[in-house]
Amino acid sequence: MYTTGRMKEGDFGVEPLLEVFMKGALVALVFLVLSASVQAKVVGHAVDYKDGDLSFEGYVAVDETLSALRPGVLVVHDWMGVSAETRRRCDMLAGLGYVAFAADIYGKGVRPSTPEEAGKLAGLYKGDRALFRKRLALALTQLRKDAHVDRSRVAAIGYCFGGTGVIELARSGADVRGVVSFHGGLDSLHPEDAKAIKCRVLVLHGADDPYNPPADVAAFQDEMRKAGVDWQMIYYGGAVHAFTNPGAGSDPRRGAAYDARADARSWTAMRDFLQEIFK
Amino acid sequence: MYTTGRMKEGDFGVEPLLEVFMKGALVALVFLVLSASVQAKVVGHAVDYKDGDLSFEGYVAVDETLSALRPGVLVVHDWMGVSAETRRRCDMLAGLGYVAFAADIYGKGVRPSTPEEAGKLAGLYKGDRALFRKRLALALTQLRKDAHVDRSRVAAIGYCFGGTGVIELARSGADVRGVVSFHGGLDSLHPEDAKAIKCRVLVLHGADDPYNPPADVAAFQDEMRKAGVDWQMIYYGGAVHAFTNPGAGSDPRRGAAYDARADARSWTAMRDFLQEIFK
Repeated sequence: MYTTGRMKEGDFGVEPLLEVFMKGALVALVFLVLSASVQAKVVGHAVDYKDGDLSFEGYVAVDETLSALRPGVLVVHDWMGVSAETRRRCDMLAGLGYVAFAADIYGKGVRPSTPEEAGKLAGLYKGDRALFRKRLALALTQLRKDAHVDRSRVAAIGYCFGGTGVIELARSGADVRGVVSFHGGLDSLHPEDAKAIKCRVLVLHGADDPYNPPADVAAFQDEMRKAGVDWQMIYYGGAVHAFTNPGAGSDPRRGAAYDARADARSWTAMRDFLQEIFK
Repeated sequence: MYTTGRMKEGDFGVEPLLEVFMKGALVALVFLVLSASVQAKVVGHAVDYKDGDLSFEGYVAVDETLSALRPGVLVVHDWMGVSAETRRRCDMLAGLGYVAFAADIYGKGVRPSTPEEAGKLAGLYKGDRALFRKRLALALTQLRKDAHVDRSRVAAIGYCFGGTGVIELARSGADVRGVVSFHGGLDSLHPEDAKAIKCRVLVLHGADDPYNPPADVAAFQDEMRKAGVDWQMIYYGGAVHAFTNPGAGSDPRRGAAYDARADARSWTAMRDFLQEIFK
């Protein structure tokens, strides 16, 4: 953890001239270190993968300036399938130094164009968790095939439909260090499956999300509690469904809306969580 | 934010010898910058202050190597009054570059020696929120008198009894940028007071804390929601009351116990929150 937050506050309590010199030197050093760190060159490309005759099209992003093996993060899309927003999140994760791989749950070319289509497709997988888990496991295997990935250090994050997905992945007993759900549905068809969870779980929740009703939230917490899972949940006041998605509009009364504040805070929480689990 | 987390993962995708050289140079730079930042010299001392004839004994901690004005953080003690644990938290905050001032709610020399005494004293203030607020405001004024404090950038954190206190401080309409409650009771005698809250609120909550029953938690969230407060709440799975206090024992079945994991995570969450509000 190279966090030296206090430096922005102060300077040194020594002789004024020396103090100025030391400040200058420190600023120069910080600048050099930061320069080295921001020269990340993130590149991404589509990845075709298969399950028998079925074809899938994911997306991988890496920082090309890195050569060592590094942790891998599976990114599970929302109900619209792999989208520009999914790829943007992968790129951001690559900027943090991870290999980010976007799972394709629906299959190559299966991309809904309306919320109605998206709802039907997402409903199919939410209603058939065994199928959902199969697709998640397939993507996880694909992530581990990436030559840059340290296979012992893998996690999964997901948004909305994908937020449900990563918890389902955890419930399947998958070998990941942790999962992060952004405004995912928390209901379970088989709460007893939580006993299979081997990883840490972080849930990032819009406190006013109508798609995650209090009864589901309470049931989820009870499920985690009974199974002895290492879980955490953050409630963002005023935030509704899809709070990380700039395409979700800005009117929370619609039940789904972008919330810049909750977006930034939840990203920071995820970043801290990944740092912890990959230590 | 001088967070360059990715550097610990990788190195540079260039010629091997140059790569080794650049890695070495980078490590040296990081070391230099970190050295500069960890040379913090935290000093603390008791602070006597008054309200008419009444005497109080707080505690202030600062990093002596800093000379610039910096944000101030009020630290409100648990039911035992200002203790070694309170001072330790002040010292830790000073290590982050803040001026940390421990409020003395009970008054100089009023230090309970048993949980029974502590319960009585804490109950007095919890039952008389006007008095509680008066003592909190007095301490806040005292913090702002410190010569190192940037008076425009002030926050408050509190533990257990003090966690209730900082939310009560917010409800009083106090001029602070934010408050952080660690396992504080969340009940309010006058929920409509939340409309006076002008600051951001972060609640760090043991998900199994029997002293914060679900009904109180739900009422608190409703209070914040109705008043349109900028609030966040983190649930730490498996954690009970007093999870940050190493003196609270290790048996969660007692309802209060130390939890190293929740302690570390909640400190990180507080650190991020303070960085955000003091930007």
